[in-house]
Order: sequence, then C-alpha cells, then structure tokens
Amino acid sequence: MEDLPVILVIEDDQAIQGIVDEALTDGGFEPAIAASGAEAVTLLKGGQIKYRALVTDINLLGRIDGWEVAKRAREIDPAFPIIYITGAAADQWAAKGVPNSILLTKPFAPAQLVTAVSQLLNAGSPPTAPA
Amino acid sequence: MEDLPVILVIEDDQAIQGIVDEALTDGGFEPAIAASGAEAVTLLKGGQIKYRALVTDINLLGRIDGWEVAKRAREIDPAFPIIYITGAAADQWAAKGVPNSILLTKPFAPAQLVTAVSQLLNAGSPPTAPA
Amino acid sequence: MEDLPVILVIEDDQAIQGIVDEALTDGGFEPAIAASGAEAVTLLKGGQIKYRALVTDINLLGRIDGWEVAKRAREIDPAFPIIYITGAAADQWAAKGVPNSILLTKPFAPAQLVTAVSQLLNAGSPPTAPA
Amino acid sequence: MEDLPVILVIEDDQAIQGIVDEALTDGGFEPAIAASGAEAVTLLKGGQIKYRALVTDINLLGRIDGWEVAKRAREIDPAFPIIYITGAAADQWAAKGVPNSILLTKPFAPAQLVTAVSQLLNAGSPPTAPA
Amino acid sequence: MEDLPVILVIEDDQAIQGIVDEALTDGGFEPAIAASGAEAVTLLKGGQIKYRALVTDINLLGRIDGWEVAKRAREIDPAFPIIYITGAAADQWAAKGVPNSILLTKPFAPAQLVTAVSQLLNAGSPPTAPA
Amino acid sequence: MEDLPVILVIEDDQAIQGIVDEALTDGGFEPAIAASGAEAVTLLKGGQIKYRALVTDINLLGRIDGWEVAKRAREIDPAFPIIYITGAAADQWAAKGVPNSILLTKPFAPAQLVTAVSQLLNAGSPPTAPA
Repeated sequence: MEDLPVILVIEDDQAIQGIVDEALTDGGFEPAIAASGAEAVTLLKGGQIKYRALVTDINLLGRIDGWEVAKRAREIDPAFPIIYITGAAADQWAAKGVPNSILLTKPFAPAQLVTAVSQLLNAGSPPTAPA
Repeated sequence: MEDLPVILVIEDDQAIQGIVDEALTDGGFEPAIAASGAEAVTLLKGGQIKYRALVTDINLLGRIDGWEVAKRAREIDPAFPIIYITGAAADQWAAKGVPNSILLTKPFAPAQLVTAVSQLLNAGSPPTAPA
Repeated sequence: MEDLPVILVIEDDQAIQGIVDEALTDGGFEPAIAASGAEAVTLLKGGQIKYRALVTDINLLGRIDGWEVAKRAREIDPAFPIIYITGAAADQWAAKGVPNSILLTKPFAPAQLVTAVSQLLNAGSPPTAPA
Repeated sequence: MEDLPVILVIEDDQAIQGIVDEALTDGGFEPAIAASGAEAVTLLKGGQIKYRALVTDINLLGRIDGWEVAKRAREIDPAFPIIYITGAAADQWAAKGVPNSILLTKPFAPAQLVTAVSQLLNAGSPPTAPA
Repeated sequence: MEDLPVILVIEDDQAIQGIVDEALTDGGFEPAIAASGAEAVTLLKGGQIKYRALVTDINLLGRIDGWEVAKRAREIDPAFPIIYITGAAADQWAAKGVPNSILLTKPFAPAQLVTAVSQLLNAGSPPTAPA
Repeated sequence: MEDLPVILVIEDDQAIQGIVDEALTDGGFEPAIAASGAEAVTLLKGGQIKYRALVTDINLLGRIDGWEVAKRAREIDPAFPIIYITGAAADQWAAKGVPNSILLTKPFAPAQLVTAVSQLLNAGSPPTAPA
C-alpha cells in the first residue's frame, strides 16, 4: 500500500492551510494544495491524479468560490466527497451546498476535518444505494 | 386539528400535477399549486401561508427552474424540506441539488412521493442536530 | 398472517384520536387505545399483548405525561419504537424525548404518522447496530 | 408518466402474496410475481423489464432461497433495493442479508412494505455517496 | 483561527478525566473541566464561553447526574451535542438519554471519544433538517 | 479503565497488518491478530476474550475468506461491528457484505480505519433500534 489517498485542498488563508495540511498528513492522507478554484477544477478535469475528496474554503481568490468548485467536482464525479470550511458563510450551506457534503465552521479542531474526510470516504467507496 | 400541512407544488405537466395533487390529498396533505417558479418564490417570501415543504419539477416554464426555486426556498428557511421530481435531470442532483433533499425519478409511484414528504417533515420538525 | 401489528395509542383529544385510529387502520395496523398514561404503562408491563410501537400525545389526563410513558416503555424494552404527537411542546423534544424517537407536530397528515410508525418498525426488527 | 415502477415479488404463501400484491398496487407500484427464486434470477438477468426493487420471502420452493436471490440481484446491480419478508428467519438477517436492505417480520402492515420500498427507491435513484 | 472549539467535560474519575482531557487536546479541542453537574449547568447558563459540546459521565458527585445535565443543556440549546460516558448505566440510555446523543461504554478508546465529538459537531453546525 | 477495547484483525499482508496494528494502537485500541479466518472464528466462538469489532481482509490464506468470517461473527453476535479491507473486491461488497458493515478500499489512510471502527462502536453499544 505504497500510495496514500490524495485529498485536494483549496485554502487561501496560510494559517488554516497549514492546519489542514498537518491534520490530513497526520491522519495518513496526502494533501494536494490548489492555489485557486480555477486550478482545482483544472486538476479535477485533468484526471492525472485520482483525488479522493475535496476540502475547500468558501471565499477564494479569483472568480470561482468554494460553492462553485464543489458543483464542478460533482459534475465530473457525482459521488465525490466534499468538505467545506468557512468562518462566515455557514448559514448559506443549506442553499448553496451540494447534497451529502459536510461543512466545518471555524474554529474547528483538526480531528473534525479528519473525521469528516474519513466519514465521507468510508461511506462512498462501495455502491451504497440507500442509507 | 382543522388545518392540514400545506405543500407547495410546482409542476407544469398536467398529468404529473394531477398525480401529485391526488397523492398528497390522499395522504392528508393540502397541495397548493404554483404556476411557475417565480410565483412559488413570491408565495414563499410572502409568508401569508405557512408552507411545510416544496415539491418541484426541474424543468419549468419561465426563467426560474426547480434547482433555483429550491435554493431560494432554503435562503428563506434553511431547513425547508425539498422534493425534486424529474424525468431526465436525475444525474444533475449531486451537483445542483440542495443538501438533505430527495429526488424522485419518473416514473414514480404516488407512495414514493408521500413517503418522501413524510420523511422530510418527520425529521425536520424538532431541532435535529446530528443524525 | 392473521395477526396485525398492534400499536398502543394514548390520545385524549377525541378528534385527533379518530384521525390516528383511522390512519393506523388504513395502513394495516391495529390500534389499541389506552385511556391514560398509567393505563398504557400497565398494559406494556402486563405483556399480554405484544405491542409493536407507542403513539402518544404529550399532554395527558392524569399524572403521567407522554414523555414519562415513553421512558417507562423504554425501560421495559430499550428498542421500543416511540412516536410523540404534540401541538405545543415540540421544542421540548430535544431535552425530554428518548433517543431514536419521532415527534409529529400538529397539524400533521395521516401519512406522516403511518410513515413514522413504519420507519421505526422497519428499522427496529433486525438487530441493527450502526446506521 | 404512463409507466409504473415495477417491483419483482417472490412469495410462495398465497395469502401473503395477495397482501403484498394489493399493498404495492395501492401504493402505485406494479408488482410482478415470480414463481421461484430461479425464475426471479432469470428475469433479473434477462433485462427485458427494468425492475426497480425486489421483495422476497426467505423460504422459497426450489433450490434458491431469498438470501441467495438477493445476492444474485446485487451481483447484477450493486445498488438494487432489497426487501426481505420473513416469519422465522429474522435473526439471520445480520449474517445473511445484504447491506442496505430492509427486513419485514411477519405479521407486518401493508404500509410497512410500501414505506420500505419507497424509502429504498427514494434513497437510491441519485448517486448518493455518503449518508 | 486562534481559538479552539471548547468542550465541556464532567468526569469525577481522575483517571478517566485524564484520558478524556488528553484525547480531546490531541484532537485539537480545548477541554474545560467542570467539577460537578451543578457547576456545568451554571457554566452553560452563564454563556460567557461558547461551549460546543458536552462530554459527561453518568454518575456524578452531587445532586445532578449526567442524564440531568444533558437535559438542562438541551433546554438551553436544543441542538447541543451530548456524549455520555458510562461503565454501568449503558442499558439506561434508551430511556434516559436525549435524542441524537452518543453513549460511550467503558472501556473505550480515546479515538472513539474524538470521533463521537467530531461526528456530532460536523453534523450540527449547519441547519440539517432531515438525515 | 485499565482495559482497552480489543479489535480482532485478520490480515495476511504484512505491510497492511503493520499499518492496521499501528493505527489501532495509536487510536487507543488493542489489536489482536488472527493468523487465518479459521483461527478468527475459533477465537470468536471461544469467548475467552470479549472482542469489540472485526477488521478483516477479504482474500485470506486458507479456506475461509473475509466475507465468510464476517458471516460467522454475525451468527455469534448479530450486532458485531465488521470492517472489511480490500484492494480488488470492493464491487462485491453489495452482494457479499453483511448489513451495517464498512468497507475500506486500499489505499486507505489509517484515520479512515480508526474512524470506521469508532463509528461502528459508538453506534452499536446502546440498543439503537432505528437510525
């Protein structure tokens, strides 16, 4: 099992990015940082690397915010696990989030992130029709 | 208990509208038909009637489709129960649907609709933090 | 399959009792009406009839309210399905309700009651550790 | 919506078969009765009719029991909704049942069957990765 | 993200308190220890600190046990995440626990506690009507 | 709390076994390694040690594979938590897995395993009838 599950991360805030990076690495995941929403979409479309989940902040530099990146990811793979991180936009999740996603509100503990990614990956791997 | 729970319904197809109307009435709900997405949004914003759930087709006459009406409904009430009905757009639910919604694919049985509305209402009434 | 699943019902309000009785009967259940919380506890303890679920109003005549009857039922059978009906006490469910119960807020549609009972019975029959 | 969702039913007991047939029809489904487990597997493999769910008794005439038919159905379609009906074999579900299935214990109310089928169909239509 | 999510902990047993304290800290939470059930209720009512969850033993020194503290916490905030820890009282959870709570039976692994807190926090932050 | 929850592990691949062993130990569990499916069944039947969950690879040396060990474990305890690990057999879970089990697909992160075990243990300890 030389490979680790690669998690695509979009986070402009350097401090939060460091926390996310360390939490995922400690949990045994391999974080891959995208610099912007547009880059993340390009990486997901490219298909060179098999990303297993997306962790994204809501407010991003550039034209594409976190809500939009998640939609694009789901157009490519309808079962793609999505975790949103936000400080201010939590009340928008019910309207702008995608189904079966998890939203983490800042401040969050690293364990919450690792649990969120794990829950979505554990549920998603086999074909799970009903809950 | 003179009142019945009122369910807002947006369905252009007369045949389906009849099925939805009869199924909800038989289940003990009171269906309220909106002629378009725009009218539905106006009714939800008006707040004159306390709607308990939204049942909406995806492809609607006018500028606002079912995905958009659902988002508007959730901006007004983040816990509002949403049931989508669709013949062709099922694969878009994972990207365009709102969290905690149910999608019914045509053809569906009336019992599926009644169960979907009931499930969402039963889960939503009390403050249910975690599942 | 000569027997029907018997559902114990405690409801002082005659109008609601009639609705509950008819809804359960139409769904294929056999409602058994208890006149008070105390009588319901006696019936559950007696064990003469194998009740499959409890449907109870919150405000009851006598000393034992619906919250208390449910607790007693769970002391006898920890997996016993509980459905509360209430007009005014919905906000107390999170503090006074038992785990894995469903609360119906008046006005409710008969289909909601039948779906609630069915959901709990369908989930509860086999040993279902995790969800 | 000229078509109805077709539900494949395997039930040797004539009385139960009648109840299942009537409950599904009343709910708006179209029951299709298979005479044995072997015939059901043939029908599922044939692919002439798009069955939407399987309702099966456990003890069947012939060499293939309900546990086995369900496994075969899931080999053909990993997300296929399965509802088992049983009088005596409920305690075997945890070892012999397939994931995300529902078991109904006799006696059951027709509403339980209709709710079970509806729950599985409602959950299964869109790609639902995590619960 | 200078702040950490603060978790209120009531645990009389020094050894268990040490395990809980270390597990939460390692997970990135900030544990706040209350000396008794009464003190915990005072802290929750005071509202000086925004506690995100309650971890409580069942048997506590003083007049208020863990079941009661949880009820009080839910009266203040109906969506408040509750985790019970118990050695002997597990069979009472179905009657005395609050809805949507988690019970850990001793002996438990620290990872179980961290996962339990994370699951409840991840589910609870956005308005999640149905499961 | 001198004891730790003991998790029975069947994994032929030495590298994976090392990862599983370390992940469980770090999470605060006590892994107990069985050399084969047959030995695991013997240990579960023996009842000398109270195992709390089973983590098993699918392809095992000897006559009994992981699917079969899980069935045997569920015959002994219908609520026994099961986690499958597999590289190639993920698509067989829907047909061969037991209800309420979790399947981890290689490569997986250690955090996924710990979260999976914790989720099943947290859900399973109290009598949880409906989800």
